[in-house]
Amino acid sequence: MANSAKQPMFGKVALIGLGLIGSSLSLAMRRGGLAGFISGYAQSAETRKTAVDLGLVDEIHTNASEAVKDADLVVLCVPVGVCGAVTAEISDSLKQGAILTDVASTKGSVVRDMVPHVPAGVHFIPGHPIAGSEKSGPKAGYAELFDNRGCILTPDENADPVMTDKLEAFWRACGSYVDRMDAAHHDMVLAITSHLPHLIAYSIVMTASHLEEVTESEVIKFSAGGFRDFTRIAASDPTMWRDVFLNNKEAVLEMLGRFSEDLSALQKAIRHQDGDMLFDLFTRSRDIRRGIVEAGQDTDEPDFGRLS
Amino acid sequence: MANSAKQPMFGKVALIGLGLIGSSLSLAMRRGGLAGFISGYAQSAETRKTAVDLGLVDEIHTNASEAVKDADLVVLCVPVGVCGAVTAEISDSLKQGAILTDVASTKGSVVRDMVPHVPAGVHFIPGHPIAGSEKSGPKAGYAELFDNRGCILTPDENADPVMTDKLEAFWRACGSYVDRMDAAHHDMVLAITSHLPHLIAYSIVMTASHLEEVTESEVIKFSAGGFRDFTRIAASDPTMWRDVFLNNKEAVLEMLGRFSEDLSALQKAIRHQDGDMLFDLFTRSRDIRRGIVEAGQDTDEPDFGRLS
Repeated sequence: MANSAKQPMFGKVALIGLGLIGSSLSLAMRRGGLAGFISGYAQSAETRKTAVDLGLVDEIHTNASEAVKDADLVVLCVPVGVCGAVTAEISDSLKQGAILTDVASTKGSVVRDMVPHVPAGVHFIPGHPIAGSEKSGPKAGYAELFDNRGCILTPDENADPVMTDKLEAFWRACGSYVDRMDAAHHDMVLAITSHLPHLIAYSIVMTASHLEEVTESEVIKFSAGGFRDFTRIAASDPTMWRDVFLNNKEAVLEMLGRFSEDLSALQKAIRHQDGDMLFDLFTRSRDIRRGIVEAGQDTDEPDFGRLS
Repeated sequence: MANSAKQPMFGKVALIGLGLIGSSLSLAMRRGGLAGFISGYAQSAETRKTAVDLGLVDEIHTNASEAVKDADLVVLCVPVGVCGAVTAEISDSLKQGAILTDVASTKGSVVRDMVPHVPAGVHFIPGHPIAGSEKSGPKAGYAELFDNRGCILTPDENADPVMTDKLEAFWRACGSYVDRMDAAHHDMVLAITSHLPHLIAYSIVMTASHLEEVTESEVIKFSAGGFRDFTRIAASDPTMWRDVFLNNKEAVLEMLGRFSEDLSALQKAIRHQDGDMLFDLFTRSRDIRRGIVEAGQDTDEPDFGRLS
């Protein structure tokens, strides 16, 4: 017990999927000494090679079942749409008493797809680190990705409190602050803070690329006026985002409906030259921005390369 | 002629308005040695004091007519909506042969409002540097604001080519690349690259702040998922943006109509679970992003503080 401070939090951790999140999680675990041993699985041979070359894993596997054997913590870092299938595949190989979690951006669908395949004696606690980048793949990862970012856990009423606390401590050790809520509420929160913004960004890029009057090169050249900031989030991983929209459909459509109403109100104010309404709204928007800067979720520094 | 290289481009420059753009222009002129003398006008006493304290001007005036006397170049750095009134006010004080320009985000309305007040013998050449920030006011300015950003000039068919070339050389010396186009085309280009993105950003902030199911503190806490990037542009100067929408109404409503159609198509794809359509669109969005990064309008570096 003399050197208990040096004991890792988990003896063996299996990372299923080694894209941006999986690779960043490996680097965050290495930084904090959180895992005694990291095994990994990735579908593509190229990703597996990169993961080994970068030292992201101590052992790489060509099948997920092999990777999870004897693991104390198994983290699915795969697109939302395949979480169920992957769980079915690894189900028989999961160790009794292990914690199984995920990092998917939707939680209702993941619970629906995964729970039927979780064996008794394995602790499934859904999770979602609110961190990412427009970059994807194992080379995009970095240890600081989760620092000062939220991570949401959505344990159900049967979840073992000790195991939930342990997973929460793990994410805190990766740099995140952790909140717990139910899966349905998570899906609403993310629909407005993440899914709808991405959908809108994709949509305006679509609009800009279809114009006859304005060329694509003009759009690119003068993008510093605001458009640029939308393209950054519209450059995110296409597979991940397709799956998000298909799997959080109700909440996204609900938020989209409200957004469309608000946009129509603005449209009407412009058409009717209602300057007072526009001025009031634009003034109130600054308060929300101030809240975000004060909460440390963005910097207030002038950013010469980025400001629009 | 021996020290002609040290001659400033303009003997006296008058900056009418000393907010973000006016103050940055002063600093860019100082950096490049472009003005022999800078006179300034600002409506508010506080701004005038700040401009003097920061050394932005060699002489400050409480009325715009005084500031433009003997100036070889007069730059209106005021909101779109007051360009006409300010021109009427300074009209009698403008020097024969002077260049009069502006920095407003809409050009059709500015031409309409200013031209009737421009005296014969004064060269009015409308301009628009595509650079800005969510910060406003004289303290927000910095010399590099225009570096590697576009500046659009919209001289009409009567403009003196020598004077237009001179103004173009001035903006290049401030760090910008310069394009020329007609005012109507400018207003279309900016409607899609800047005005519509701002309108959408304001709209989604409005939607997020009206939800009953998700609290404002949750929106702020989990904004790193994408919402944050929208709030940055939605924190821009309210007066400026009100005027932009009121004065580029037709082009903004036109682009908004097309955006709404594209958003409806995405909505339909989500409702009908059309994953292929979503995947194809999301993949194509990456190409536009690549164009922007390659054109030097944004950086490709991972940005720990900002990535969504």
